[in-house]
Amino acid sequence: MIIVVKPNSTDEQLRHIVDTIESMGLKADLSKGLHRTVIGVIGEEDAVRNAPLGAIPGVEEVLPILKPYKLASREYQKEDSVFDIGFGVKVGGGNLAMIAGPCAIEGEEILFEIGKAVKAAGANILRGGAYKPRTSPYAFQGLGEDGLRILRKVGDALGMPVVTEVMDTRQVEIVNKYTDMFQIGARNMQNFNLLSEVGQTRKPVLLKRGMSAGPTDLLMSAEYVLAQGNKRVILCERGIKSFDSSTRNLLDLALVPNIKGLSHLPIIVDPSHATGRPDLIPPMALAAVAGGADGIHIEVHSCPEKALSDGPQALLPHQYEAVMGQIRKLAALFNKTIPEAKG
Amino acid sequence: MIIVVKPNSTDEQLRHIVDTIESMGLKADLSKGLHRTVIGVIGEEDAVRNAPLGAIPGVEEVLPILKPYKLASREYQKEDSVFDIGFGVKVGGGNLAMIAGPCAIEGEEILFEIGKAVKAAGANILRGGAYKPRTSPYAFQGLGEDGLRILRKVGDALGMPVVTEVMDTRQVEIVNKYTDMFQIGARNMQNFNLLSEVGQTRKPVLLKRGMSAGPTDLLMSAEYVLAQGNKRVILCERGIKSFDSSTRNLLDLALVPNIKGLSHLPIIVDPSHATGRPDLIPPMALAAVAGGADGIHIEVHSCPEKALSDGPQALLPHQYEAVMGQIRKLAALFNKTIPEAKG
Amino acid sequence: MIIVVKPNSTDEQLRHIVDTIESMGLKADLSKGLHRTVIGVIGEEDAVRNAPLGAIPGVEEVLPILKPYKLASREYQKEDSVFDIGFGVKVGGGNLAMIAGPCAIEGEEILFEIGKAVKAAGANILRGGAYKPRTSPYAFQGLGEDGLRILRKVGDALGMPVVTEVMDTRQVEIVNKYTDMFQIGARNMQNFNLLSEVGQTRKPVLLKRGMSAGPTDLLMSAEYVLAQGNKRVILCERGIKSFDSSTRNLLDLALVPNIKGLSHLPIIVDPSHATGRPDLIPPMALAAVAGGADGIHIEVHSCPEKALSDGPQALLPHQYEAVMGQIRKLAALFNKTIPEAKG
Amino acid sequence: MIIVVKPNSTDEQLRHIVDTIESMGLKADLSKGLHRTVIGVIGEEDAVRNAPLGAIPGVEEVLPILKPYKLASREYQKEDSVFDIGFGVKVGGGNLAMIAGPCAIEGEEILFEIGKAVKAAGANILRGGAYKPRTSPYAFQGLGEDGLRILRKVGDALGMPVVTEVMDTRQVEIVNKYTDMFQIGARNMQNFNLLSEVGQTRKPVLLKRGMSAGPTDLLMSAEYVLAQGNKRVILCERGIKSFDSSTRNLLDLALVPNIKGLSHLPIIVDPSHATGRPDLIPPMALAAVAGGADGIHIEVHSCPEKALSDGPQALLPHQYEAVMGQIRKLAALFNKTIPEAKG
Repeated sequence: MIIVVKPNSTDEQLRHIVDTIESMGLKADLSKGLHRTVIGVIGEEDAVRNAPLGAIPGVEEVLPILKPYKLASREYQKEDSVFDIGFGVKVGGGNLAMIAGPCAIEGEEILFEIGKAVKAAGANILRGGAYKPRTSPYAFQGLGEDGLRILRKVGDALGMPVVTEVMDTRQVEIVNKYTDMFQIGARNMQNFNLLSEVGQTRKPVLLKRGMSAGPTDLLMSAEYVLAQGNKRVILCERGIKSFDSSTRNLLDLALVPNIKGLSHLPIIVDPSHATGRPDLIPPMALAAVAGGADGIHIEVHSCPEKALSDGPQALLPHQYEAVMGQIRKLAALFNKTIPEAKG
Repeated sequence: MIIVVKPNSTDEQLRHIVDTIESMGLKADLSKGLHRTVIGVIGEEDAVRNAPLGAIPGVEEVLPILKPYKLASREYQKEDSVFDIGFGVKVGGGNLAMIAGPCAIEGEEILFEIGKAVKAAGANILRGGAYKPRTSPYAFQGLGEDGLRILRKVGDALGMPVVTEVMDTRQVEIVNKYTDMFQIGARNMQNFNLLSEVGQTRKPVLLKRGMSAGPTDLLMSAEYVLAQGNKRVILCERGIKSFDSSTRNLLDLALVPNIKGLSHLPIIVDPSHATGRPDLIPPMALAAVAGGADGIHIEVHSCPEKALSDGPQALLPHQYEAVMGQIRKLAALFNKTIPEAKG
Repeated sequence: MIIVVKPNSTDEQLRHIVDTIESMGLKADLSKGLHRTVIGVIGEEDAVRNAPLGAIPGVEEVLPILKPYKLASREYQKEDSVFDIGFGVKVGGGNLAMIAGPCAIEGEEILFEIGKAVKAAGANILRGGAYKPRTSPYAFQGLGEDGLRILRKVGDALGMPVVTEVMDTRQVEIVNKYTDMFQIGARNMQNFNLLSEVGQTRKPVLLKRGMSAGPTDLLMSAEYVLAQGNKRVILCERGIKSFDSSTRNLLDLALVPNIKGLSHLPIIVDPSHATGRPDLIPPMALAAVAGGADGIHIEVHSCPEKALSDGPQALLPHQYEAVMGQIRKLAALFNKTIPEAKG
Repeated sequence: MIIVVKPNSTDEQLRHIVDTIESMGLKADLSKGLHRTVIGVIGEEDAVRNAPLGAIPGVEEVLPILKPYKLASREYQKEDSVFDIGFGVKVGGGNLAMIAGPCAIEGEEILFEIGKAVKAAGANILRGGAYKPRTSPYAFQGLGEDGLRILRKVGDALGMPVVTEVMDTRQVEIVNKYTDMFQIGARNMQNFNLLSEVGQTRKPVLLKRGMSAGPTDLLMSAEYVLAQGNKRVILCERGIKSFDSSTRNLLDLALVPNIKGLSHLPIIVDPSHATGRPDLIPPMALAAVAGGADGIHIEVHSCPEKALSDGPQALLPHQYEAVMGQIRKLAALFNKTIPEAKG
């Protein structure tokens, strides 16, 4: 960290700053410029990061020079993380995760119908929500364990790994029983207890970016999972809050190469939640692949106008098939692989 | 809801829209303008709200005319909610909740020292965190149950009700045992399971606004608590995310009168988290009272440079005393009462 | 427009609303639902749009159903606009504008060197600023007319059309003399007098999106140019303000297909200003082409560390050549053409 | 400035960075920490600020420690700026500017009626737009010079200084002829040519904050005026863009004390444009005064539903009178003066 000292500080104030830093077991490296005195604070990373330097009287600003995450960083691991989700599906290092399925699990027959269609189109991971984070307490909240059972059954029948959202630390055990990958939703990105809890399992975690989280916030949340020993974290950009209400959220595609510079973890893109509009999902899915994403997450429903949740943003199966056709060509152009899920 | 139909829609498309609406048990009221056809959708509120109207082909836009919350609304209850927190402290209807204390509970002695100072200055609710939502897994995470025990002991010794954050559904029972009011932090504003869980207790809930939540989102989260039968919810504005990094968050003070128009629930303001800067906290506390807030939440520490969490934004006890002196004059001017906590 | 009436409005209030609407020469179509009364306002588009309906007592909300722009809309012109910039370069309808060059014109030799390199790499429009909108009055403000002369000379020598920013209505005449296309910068997107002034010329206009402008705001600004009779407007996404300071701005790539649904005007993407980071420019340029953009705007400098403006975000010529190689492959995949500029 | 060097940089890269800095006529102060090497860049302020340090290969980040504005800063002038607007009205240092009037000048009679009412209520500066920055080219654009003539006449008749917006460098001369103070609107906050032009007059300038401008951006724009020798700049907070569409903009009241720490210039608040809602304007006007604002800007119209511009956000004269009554009490409490305008 670097401390910028307020102009016109007295020698006594300077001495107090240096003393306080040293009392924290850190070293203070003072340097007087023409207009400002700055103090470099040197010591063990964590001690430096957690010291309340900004509270010392006379300090104008604290400029961080250390990243606050470790295990998630490119400095910690240079090579891209590559790992298995199950059913022969690898993610990272040029392998694209193509996640598709309905917003909510509504029944076995409809899930099988949708799952069969998306698998035929090239999807390699099946999604479906059993616990739904609905903004209204009066809206459909998901089928719970019945939904999990259906998801597992359909995934096995189709030979696809399955992913589903977990919303509560108390659900981790049961969701773990039925799923191949946990999803942490955007609204829970900073539910730190939930992050620690899935970190203690040995299932991969799909961690969605919060609506007002920057790249550092996202990597800090990944760090919570990694710090528990679970190394298989997939990050997911799904749009942030913005002033523009013509789309549901605002897709921040530059996050993909931005994160790839900072971290070895794979990062995929969800244009369904990011835009909320079927007309924008295909072009943004293509843009994401061209921009370097490690996969795409798309909601598909065979009858959106009867969907119990998020119908208006779902692609129809034939629309998904069309965009997957183009994605395959792009993948070939960029030497990426779309692993096939095998039963 | 009102549906705007795409221009140049065929009669067949129009008929499909109307049929779909009627198949949902709703009425469709069609009206052709010069440039657009619009359809009013009429029926039971919840059925209308949850119908996936936007997914019907030919629909250009769905304009909501119903608020999605009920129990939290001014239409449901005209008069301001007024209720007890304990120790003789009422909130709402002209009674101001003055919440103060350190960010984290660090020990009994220091908490007593700070609590005594803020009570002397006029605070009527003591705060302190035992479970801390830290963005880093390596930072101080709070004293847990030991902290809760200290908080209860100091609250009782000083004759003040206490409030502390609960972060996990599994903590609700133990926090309920020690505290007078639950705090739901900004990062958990849409942790719907946690909201339902504290809704099932009979303790008041201090619900902090999420960093990217609008007034409707905040009231929907309150609705989750109210729907469980717990009527004592205090809302709290604590700043939103913005492009300006010169303050920690961006204080949205207009939320106070905005919410007061929409809801009967009391709403207080936390200038500590909203600004993150001791120089901005006093003027914003005064502005909040003048703008109609039902209380102020301020972090106070007797030695910020040694605080284990958020030291740089804490007021010193004498600074808190000074701002409370001015708040008392403002309260008198606006005929507001600051109830005294009584042991 | 649709007016939502406040609940519990009296018949007298309703009558006043209807009377006021009719006194504006408009028709009021009243419809009572279970919970709300709504009134459709019908009449000539402009009269409806400009009526201060929200100011009538008893009105809760005004829901717009008409787009506020006309000439810029897809409804006004179904087919994509395609037009010439000069030197054989067409834009729109599958023709990609590849604009490149330094931020500021610094001298003839250096501009020629950069221009030659970008043309060799496939750029078809040369850019360079003679009037620079610098946030500091003490920073380099551009070479003015000397710069314009250099730009024209280099453009002619290389056989490329040139584009440069105009910041002031008083500069329109002189910039018109030297350039093939006006650029309106993001900070001037709502400088309505400047928009009208370039609208009165017969040169194409590159209109950059303002940092807090939504799609409607952008199209309204285009409408100012179109309304003066100048039909050749190219829109440009260059990033919006966001809470994330790790990039200069936040690239909103979904704006491309979003605008294409609303308007016939071509829209290009500027990843240089959007990200401000050389490492993010190539992947976002590729993403933009895959997402349907009609062109790419990239700043290139042969010696960024000596650039007089925005050096840190410039690509080196060889980096530009590399990304252009990939763009050509993408263009072929999507059946797009990159017209060659011919002297 | 402080340069953070990329980890694992070679000695050669370090040497190149230092050489480049020295070739700019600056001094490089190198300091190696445990994890990062940092280099302090020392020299003449402007030279340091404008050096493209971020473009030097091997540089990870550039941390600014100097503010980019000078004349506007508290360091340059410690005491609050206090100056005259005319007609005996002082602003700054405890003197409150109470600006009121209609959005647009619509005619002499109506302006006189409104002006008389607001003066009676305590307003000391009359506002009214003759040139209106309308987002639509088809909306009422203002009366132009006829409007200016009316404004001057009514101001003189009532004995009040007048302020009106100038949108174009070509209008500065004529607006200067009729007005006592220029207003630069939010959309022109970074119209640098316009800022320089009003800087060359000797009339005070009311500079409104842009919708996505931070405190530094605002002060840099003020610096453009000050640098031309015009010392009388009043800043004005009028709301920023946010994700919340329930208010027109988002009032950032903490900007008031924030700016007061950074600058000696007076800063007032415009709750009319900030909220766009008559129900929120009075509480936010009170909050602004309690928070330390040097004045309040409110739009008032005697018949909002017939206003030619922004009717829905105007207060009625009796509503303005009511809020002014409360403001007077607050002003007394905080020892502020509301100067009376004298003919």
